[in-house]
Amino acid sequence: MNEKEIGRFYYGKRVLITGGLGFLGSNLAHALVERGSHVTLLDSLLPQFGGNPFNVATIKDRVAIVVDDIRNESILKTLIPEHQFIFHIAGQASHVDSLADPLLDMDINCRGTLLILEAIRHGSPKSQFIYAGTRGQYGKPNKTPVSESDAMNPTDIYGIHKTTGENYLFLYSKLYGIQGISLRVNNTYGPRHQMKHGNYGILNWFIRLAMEGKPIPVFGDGNQLRDYNYVDDVTEAFLLAGMNTKSVAEPFNLGSGHPVTFLDLCKSVVRIVGQGKIDQVPWPKERATIETGDYIANFSKLRDTTGWEPKITLDDGLMRTVTFFEKYRDHYWSP
Amino acid sequence: MNEKEIGRFYYGKRVLITGGLGFLGSNLAHALVERGSHVTLLDSLLPQFGGNPFNVATIKDRVAIVVDDIRNESILKTLIPEHQFIFHIAGQASHVDSLADPLLDMDINCRGTLLILEAIRHGSPKSQFIYAGTRGQYGKPNKTPVSESDAMNPTDIYGIHKTTGENYLFLYSKLYGIQGISLRVNNTYGPRHQMKHGNYGILNWFIRLAMEGKPIPVFGDGNQLRDYNYVDDVTEAFLLAGMNTKSVAEPFNLGSGHPVTFLDLCKSVVRIVGQGKIDQVPWPKERATIETGDYIANFSKLRDTTGWEPKITLDDGLMRTVTFFEKYRDHYWSP
Repeated sequence: MNEKEIGRFYYGKRVLITGGLGFLGSNLAHALVERGSHVTLLDSLLPQFGGNPFNVATIKDRVAIVVDDIRNESILKTLIPEHQFIFHIAGQASHVDSLADPLLDMDINCRGTLLILEAIRHGSPKSQFIYAGTRGQYGKPNKTPVSESDAMNPTDIYGIHKTTGENYLFLYSKLYGIQGISLRVNNTYGPRHQMKHGNYGILNWFIRLAMEGKPIPVFGDGNQLRDYNYVDDVTEAFLLAGMNTKSVAEPFNLGSGHPVTFLDLCKSVVRIVGQGKIDQVPWPKERATIETGDYIANFSKLRDTTGWEPKITLDDGLMRTVTFFEKYRDHYWSP
Repeated sequence: MNEKEIGRFYYGKRVLITGGLGFLGSNLAHALVERGSHVTLLDSLLPQFGGNPFNVATIKDRVAIVVDDIRNESILKTLIPEHQFIFHIAGQASHVDSLADPLLDMDINCRGTLLILEAIRHGSPKSQFIYAGTRGQYGKPNKTPVSESDAMNPTDIYGIHKTTGENYLFLYSKLYGIQGISLRVNNTYGPRHQMKHGNYGILNWFIRLAMEGKPIPVFGDGNQLRDYNYVDDVTEAFLLAGMNTKSVAEPFNLGSGHPVTFLDLCKSVVRIVGQGKIDQVPWPKERATIETGDYIANFSKLRDTTGWEPKITLDDGLMRTVTFFEKYRDHYWSP
């Protein structure tokens, strides 16, 4: 699938993105606006979550922005039938927070997803549904690299509920013929990520720490392998997923093909930011219980089905990310 | 495990049963009261659900009955710390209804279970938690007999949410040391089942139809295999599960060891009731989509771990069930 085909496909298409002012959602919005789609962004702008109006500042006149919640059934009933593609990216995304407030996680990640699917089922069954799953569904994998058919061992409520949401999608596809697939998103970093806290998106958080000259805490030996994708590659995976009508009720892994140790990742951050330092500390208890060990994704299914491959190297991605936040820092955190 | 050991174990124990006025819950209540436990029954008595005060009429002075909902956090915070054993049996149990109102199913089967586990986690972490899972979690199995490690292919929202609830239990056991196990309950029949409709507990419903001289509808050829347990055997499995502290965060299948075709099951009902007839009809669409094909459980894990084995044959169980409803019919349905 080349860039021209993607552009032609999305030109003039009506696309709804939930969580559209957040990290993945806003980057996807930019990509779709560039390709001439009619884009609506639904975002609740919950405090402490990733939504930030600045993420779409440069395209705000070319998108419709609806500040509302996926848990509001009536807004879904209004918006969903108007759109051919529903990229469902809104969610509670913190592992740690999901354990502190499991009911909120359920409300957003289960009830929110179910309400969207109900709105599609009853009001817009031809709409295509692309779900942001997560590598957190696998939890602590029995082996790496992890394939889509491998067992789920979620280590937190977030992983349980994202799996429940994916199961809704598979069921609704089978029972009601909804065209839906799930991308099990890998660890992702890049521009437009929230930088207020490190409860999710730890690599972006470490970039902030380094930019502020603060120490980056690495728990334990830091030798666990991680698999990181730059956000533009993830955006392209979402675009290709929306074009893929061969696969229904199917999950697809994302991955980088270049796993790195957590410690090396942090060293790259310090090197590219040009300041900061690494501070190796013992595992805090609440992190140790949900630590998943090595994680490497097998993304051959997505590659073979859609032609997707990650293009941006870690160094290149870090450089772009640091450049972005050096320029727009004030829009992401207060000094 | 012999009967004497079970009796001694539960004597004087403080036991909470959610859904305690329903089918499984009230039968378990009778068994525990007989063994000298201090039993509290929590039941919301939602219309159309299985709760029926008559189910405990003969023991009502020896149990505490709380008519309230598992979704009421404050009643859980009051009740749970007072009990050593929490048998969580309350639930939305209809496959068809779970598709008609998936949000209600989520609210009861996910949120209700999560609220109970949160109340245990924060208020009573030593309480033992026994979860009523279901064979519906397997949905349409890839092979039979079905073992606990086999894949889940739920064909309805009910199966998805019961799996989510079980995942909560496993996670809370691992993270917070809660002693919890799940019994994946088989198709069950017997006295004290609701007889108002056939949305769940189809065998009991067929007994009513036969008792009224009405035709029993069998969809298709009726050759799919089914695995039925009489409720007293299921009650004993719950008692043994509560005594089992070797297994934490583990699921266990129930099963009969004597699968029968659906058609033969219905013929037995007609024979034992002494009236009624079988009416073979095509599959209705909403049933066909959630039909699971043959189902036979492998229950060797429960047998090897606890010594449990089903004791009541199908004919014997049907005879006891019919005798019960002939005697108490007026308490279960209006003429």
